[in-house]
Amino acid sequence: MAEGNVMEKIVSLCKRRGFVYPASEIYGGINGFWDYGPLGSLLKNNIRDSWWRTMVEAPPIGPDGHPIDMVGVDTSIIQNPKTWVASGHVGGFSDPMVDDRETKQRYRADHVMVYVPKDKQGNAFAFLPGEEEAAEKKIKRDARRNPADYEKIPLTKLPLDQFGNIVAPATKTAGTLTEPRAFNLMFITYVGAIQDEESKSYLRPETAQGIFLNYKNIVDTTRVKIPFGVAQIGKSFRNEVTPRNFIFRSREFEQMEMEFFCHPDESRTWYEFWTAERMRWWESIGVKKENLRLREHEKDELSHYSKMTVDIEYRYPFTAPDFGELEGIAHRGDYDLTQHQKHSGNRLDYFDQELQLKLKEQGANADEIKQKSRYIPHVIEPASGLTRAVLLLLCEAYAEDATRPSPVYLKFDAKMAPVKVGIFPLVNKEGMPEVAEKLYMDLRTKFMCEYDPKQSIGKRYARMDEIGTPYCVTIDGQTLQDQTVTIRERDTLKQERVALDKVGGYLSERLT
Amino acid sequence: MAEGNVMEKIVSLCKRRGFVYPASEIYGGINGFWDYGPLGSLLKNNIRDSWWRTMVEAPPIGPDGHPIDMVGVDTSIIQNPKTWVASGHVGGFSDPMVDDRETKQRYRADHVMVYVPKDKQGNAFAFLPGEEEAAEKKIKRDARRNPADYEKIPLTKLPLDQFGNIVAPATKTAGTLTEPRAFNLMFITYVGAIQDEESKSYLRPETAQGIFLNYKNIVDTTRVKIPFGVAQIGKSFRNEVTPRNFIFRSREFEQMEMEFFCHPDESRTWYEFWTAERMRWWESIGVKKENLRLREHEKDELSHYSKMTVDIEYRYPFTAPDFGELEGIAHRGDYDLTQHQKHSGNRLDYFDQELQLKLKEQGANADEIKQKSRYIPHVIEPASGLTRAVLLLLCEAYAEDATRPSPVYLKFDAKMAPVKVGIFPLVNKEGMPEVAEKLYMDLRTKFMCEYDPKQSIGKRYARMDEIGTPYCVTIDGQTLQDQTVTIRERDTLKQERVALDKVGGYLSERLT
Repeated sequence: MAEGNVMEKIVSLCKRRGFVYPASEIYGGINGFWDYGPLGSLLKNNIRDSWWRTMVEAPPIGPDGHPIDMVGVDTSIIQNPKTWVASGHVGGFSDPMVDDRETKQRYRADHVMVYVPKDKQGNAFAFLPGEEEAAEKKIKRDARRNPADYEKIPLTKLPLDQFGNIVAPATKTAGTLTEPRAFNLMFITYVGAIQDEESKSYLRPETAQGIFLNYKNIVDTTRVKIPFGVAQIGKSFRNEVTPRNFIFRSREFEQMEMEFFCHPDESRTWYEFWTAERMRWWESIGVKKENLRLREHEKDELSHYSKMTVDIEYRYPFTAPDFGELEGIAHRGDYDLTQHQKHSGNRLDYFDQELQLKLKEQGANADEIKQKSRYIPHVIEPASGLTRAVLLLLCEAYAEDATRPSPVYLKFDAKMAPVKVGIFPLVNKEGMPEVAEKLYMDLRTKFMCEYDPKQSIGKRYARMDEIGTPYCVTIDGQTLQDQTVTIRERDTLKQERVALDKVGGYLSERLT
Repeated sequence: MAEGNVMEKIVSLCKRRGFVYPASEIYGGINGFWDYGPLGSLLKNNIRDSWWRTMVEAPPIGPDGHPIDMVGVDTSIIQNPKTWVASGHVGGFSDPMVDDRETKQRYRADHVMVYVPKDKQGNAFAFLPGEEEAAEKKIKRDARRNPADYEKIPLTKLPLDQFGNIVAPATKTAGTLTEPRAFNLMFITYVGAIQDEESKSYLRPETAQGIFLNYKNIVDTTRVKIPFGVAQIGKSFRNEVTPRNFIFRSREFEQMEMEFFCHPDESRTWYEFWTAERMRWWESIGVKKENLRLREHEKDELSHYSKMTVDIEYRYPFTAPDFGELEGIAHRGDYDLTQHQKHSGNRLDYFDQELQLKLKEQGANADEIKQKSRYIPHVIEPASGLTRAVLLLLCEAYAEDATRPSPVYLKFDAKMAPVKVGIFPLVNKEGMPEVAEKLYMDLRTKFMCEYDPKQSIGKRYARMDEIGTPYCVTIDGQTLQDQTVTIRERDTLKQERVALDKVGGYLSERLT
């Protein structure tokens, strides 16, 4: 894959071909929000359906050789606000921020660097990554000193009493940066007719808590037994201060999360099991192994709820040659259920009948059996972003080749391609459209097809390459004589003549 | 279908079997929000996929005998707030409300009735539907008068100057009902680091506007030509003052909306076309014709944007023998595009090349051609609720029969059933589970299956009836001898022996 301005080219292709548009573009947009266009929504649905099939409809075979127990849910974005107190999001889900007292511009504290005078005399000068030169100019002009008399220190490493005299990055006057304070990332709203503290609610920052809220209902009303998983796909919201990198970090995004409830003693096994399974899945949707890697979190990196976490990382164009976050597999221990048990007053422990029987057979005494067969399950959570997966597949598919009809094309895995088959009459007359439309009507019940009778055939092929359509079928003059068509393969550009009544079978073999 | 407390029974079945749970139930719930459980999410997905297939993957054949042009999108819930000013939702999307000055309780003005003294002497007494008796008691006790001296008048019919002395429904003291004022139904939130009027945004109250916002991008970047449709499925939010009737009117819900852009002169044809198509679709997912009806809106009922609207109505248990709203097919004219053109300053008219050619061929003059071939398209909108469709299918499927293994069962159309096939070893030993699990592994790639090896076979059948599973396959002693299994059909209770290697074909014939 080409480097450099590849991201810009992908963003531009996404807009030009209808994958992703900036939200509210006719009103100048809204920072951190994106709309999925005709092709983007199809691509997203394909990823969504593959994840759901793997998790809920046909879960993997577990370490014991039997298929895993799994169910799906679809829970509310707005929940009782106590949920987010219990989960720790009201208290802890925040970034430290500093404000420019004059312009009211707000910065993430961990993004700001400061030029601090080595002799501690006079003002310090804050700057953002990439704006170092501007800061040096300010030092020369405003403090009339040499930037070499200053040392560069991250804002978060400075003692708080020095914050009175830091020049903010965007202003020319001095002393205007506030001390860092927490800024909660949850979007707030108000439920009901009155707007006050009592009606204050939140848009969920993760889908996971909707699963924990329903854990008891699921245990009580379905046939699942420990170990089992609960999977969910849905939108989440984070009021990011600096949404960035296209749809990589947006304020509204879609998640695919699964909580796997298991016995504490088996949690390590499942942690490893799901790490391997999830790697396999990313490869199954067309991501090359060499663009993926696993990275264990260091102790000081772990979230408050996690015992251990491993990230599946991907070599994005904007991180390459380095890797960036794609999916986290977290060992959440019993943190969430314990918190919800405490805050809700509902018992969320699990009575393990099978373990009880096993212990009895092993001759354990009654007290031991009673104590061991009731427990709060531990949770392994593979959590990834559906919208981030869209970005991933676009990056992975992006290819340049100046010798092709379209110098840029998308080589999606055929299963994931938004449109599977383009169907074209060579010219829009002479009986060809009738045959082509009939074929389209037949094939569209099996694959996502696009029927396009206009423009030169070269332009139509080029467009199909650019949107990543693996096969094009063209009905031409010869079709009317011998009932064969041309099938063109995107990656090889190879064209084959196939009998009209064999086209369905030909494509089924290659697309399913 | 049985009447009376059917809704209560459906709500209870939904909870008991994992279709729909109250959101945040362990925290006492949150009014107007619901979570879709393991079966509810499957049922909802089936409806979603059927709608999407009908609209986007295989759109219907139009009046000209050719398949219709249609694309899908998936747009943000949060958009630039100017969107909602242009659409009319900031100004007009509200219910008039009255407040109790003391308790701060708020009521929808059109829900409140008032006992007004015929002689205009003394206080009037407000009451809510069903609380008439309590109001009469208050009249006797507080005003020491006879309720017969009062007349019942809807609050909205009272002159405003009488509001000072209306006793609020929930209080014992007098004079505490405010005048009605508008209460906007949009949930508000704040985007970005600062909470003020400028950052105030809204959760979308309908998915439709996300389509209008992208109309220009879609015309510019895809191959669609007028007439064409843009379809979307997604969550919307309305801060309903009185959410009610289970998932019929909830504050967070999912919509299926399609905007069909056409030439103004053809809008009437398309309005009728889509009305007929949508009726057909509801029947195709298993709704009986006699439970559906069409109702044209009266002029004074029409929304501000609509030229005409027809509702598809359904006979819900809580409206029966009457009907209630299911889907609206609205003729929105050019209202939305004109509004967005005005507010955004972007031209949203359409240049109709085909019409231009046609007019040229007809010998029209240059001015006429120029004028007629540029226009703001008219829009026909079939808009329905996905979550409401879940309720509909539950109501439609609900059946009672005291003679069956389960006295209540759900006779879903097989295509819509959340679980298609239950697979059971008669006993969980003697080689049966191995055969059953192998069959499960094979069938689950084709249909949503559930493998259940435990409990008595009668209980397992009863549970499958209750969740509406059309077929159950049982592996028993005979299977091990002659490689046949029992297939049980839900509605007829008929059992048939089928060869193990024919089961897939048997089910495919009946399920697809």
